[in-house]
Amino acid sequence: MLTFWQNYPEIQEKLKEVQKLMVAHLKINNQEIQEALQKLTARGGKMVRPALFLLFAGLVPNGKQDEEKLLKIAASLEMLHCATLIHDDIIDDSPVRRGLPSVEAQFGKDTAVYAGDFVYTIYFELLIETMNGTPFLAKNAQSMKKILQGELTQMQSAFDQKNTARRYLKAISGKTAELLSLSCLEGVYFAGGDKNMQRSARKIGRAIGLAFQVYDDILNFTVGLDEADKPILTDFRQGIYTLPLLLAKEVNEQAILPYLEAPEKLTRAECVELADLVAESGGIAGALMFAGTLTDLALAEIRKLPESRNRQILEEATQVLLKREH
Amino acid sequence: MLTFWQNYPEIQEKLKEVQKLMVAHLKINNQEIQEALQKLTARGGKMVRPALFLLFAGLVPNGKQDEEKLLKIAASLEMLHCATLIHDDIIDDSPVRRGLPSVEAQFGKDTAVYAGDFVYTIYFELLIETMNGTPFLAKNAQSMKKILQGELTQMQSAFDQKNTARRYLKAISGKTAELLSLSCLEGVYFAGGDKNMQRSARKIGRAIGLAFQVYDDILNFTVGLDEADKPILTDFRQGIYTLPLLLAKEVNEQAILPYLEAPEKLTRAECVELADLVAESGGIAGALMFAGTLTDLALAEIRKLPESRNRQILEEATQVLLKREH
Repeated sequence: MLTFWQNYPEIQEKLKEVQKLMVAHLKINNQEIQEALQKLTARGGKMVRPALFLLFAGLVPNGKQDEEKLLKIAASLEMLHCATLIHDDIIDDSPVRRGLPSVEAQFGKDTAVYAGDFVYTIYFELLIETMNGTPFLAKNAQSMKKILQGELTQMQSAFDQKNTARRYLKAISGKTAELLSLSCLEGVYFAGGDKNMQRSARKIGRAIGLAFQVYDDILNFTVGLDEADKPILTDFRQGIYTLPLLLAKEVNEQAILPYLEAPEKLTRAECVELADLVAESGGIAGALMFAGTLTDLALAEIRKLPESRNRQILEEATQVLLKREH
Repeated sequence: MLTFWQNYPEIQEKLKEVQKLMVAHLKINNQEIQEALQKLTARGGKMVRPALFLLFAGLVPNGKQDEEKLLKIAASLEMLHCATLIHDDIIDDSPVRRGLPSVEAQFGKDTAVYAGDFVYTIYFELLIETMNGTPFLAKNAQSMKKILQGELTQMQSAFDQKNTARRYLKAISGKTAELLSLSCLEGVYFAGGDKNMQRSARKIGRAIGLAFQVYDDILNFTVGLDEADKPILTDFRQGIYTLPLLLAKEVNEQAILPYLEAPEKLTRAECVELADLVAESGGIAGALMFAGTLTDLALAEIRKLPESRNRQILEEATQVLLKREH
């Protein structure tokens, strides 16, 4: 999926280096698990977090560019993300991750628990190698806590008919926005950028993170509706009520509530019905507006940064990332 | 279970402080989970790891005694232990922990995954508050890795008829001995003890850890055999083959092997039969001899330390800890 960056070879090359670093660190006394973790890492998705980190590090005028250190920090961000993905897949019983069977599906829940823990350890190792003595160790611990609190908030809200847009935003602030915000902030900090630029990076990361998650949640209500062989409304059927649904519920509670009685038991036809209802009630439009506002905010803030090739890449990538088909 | 330390009020008092610290750190945005984690911590078992740490810190002649810092490091060791316990209970489907329902049993596998992750975060927080800039952050990351590798070795050896005493020792070196060894070592280091004393502490911790685990594994083959209402050979029936069995298998393979065909399906009578067979084949005696040798080694090494009240407590506690009913 690094093809996402194919128009920006300077970033794509660096992300490949980050992948090599991760693979080199993932040494474990179990050949099978090692291979699975290395493959998961080498697939790497879009590597949004390391990419944002590297872009922001490159944005700092006359910034310190200790290449080896920066690549390791970039890797730490992706490792933290991977660890949470592995544990998330246990919770969701997710069979597939990045086009490969999930660690859980390959080795069972039990191994997935320890494999995720192991990846957390690699994350710490990378932090300690690069940040020992800086305030960013504590910052990372805080972020990790916020991410877990976000996950727990989402989990405890599952199947809760009283879930609100406000609680949803709290959950995704932790679950997604926190790590993207940290990625941008660390980029500026470790390249020696000043407080103002750090604040700006945090804000941009947070806005991109929230918008990214909201678009993802919109997709869950719009994709596959016409393709009879594709599972649809997968989050909803696991009791995870996201912004489109919650906004629709606010204006049309009577019509929506019956679907929340036993979402896991809805037929496909009922799911399509609900998706239509969410759209008709303005749930999709409202969520799109919210995500659009955040995207604009991120872009406006990006345009205030010093002009450079990295800023241009950041601006374009943000637009592509946040204007997916929906 | 802090009654284990009731004859040593100076240690018992400090361990109570450590408990308070842990409870104060375990703040999470879910009341129920917070209470469960705080209760688990407040029960605290014998708190062997923080106790060893504090005893060793107290043993250093003219040692630095930054009380607050030492208590926090003691808490970090127990937090790491708790996090692994919570995730272990997922693997073992263990219904009970420290006389309370396990986190898994109370909240399900899913919450237990995140709750364990959360406790890891508290562990890091405590490390970062106390060790930032020291080589002991990296040391902790290494230890955590060894612990997980130990767990994975044990898991991948499960139900393996070819498991050996050597592989078993490798697993428990990571699973149990590593953290006890780290506890002793950190005690000396953070009180300013010299390299010699650090080496000695590591050795003692490792010996105590190995012996402790072997005695525990012996108990699994000896306890409850006459009490019809108690589950017996619980580890064995989960495919975890420990030293008594592996030693017995070495001398009496023909007789033992049939029991390893489907250990989870053995009747109670067959389990009792196997326990007798393990004892008759010298498995219990051999394991006792091994644990006894390690205990002697630990005690001999302890007696070389500078004489003090703390050394006396350490010696007595080691004897009580390692000479349990068997």
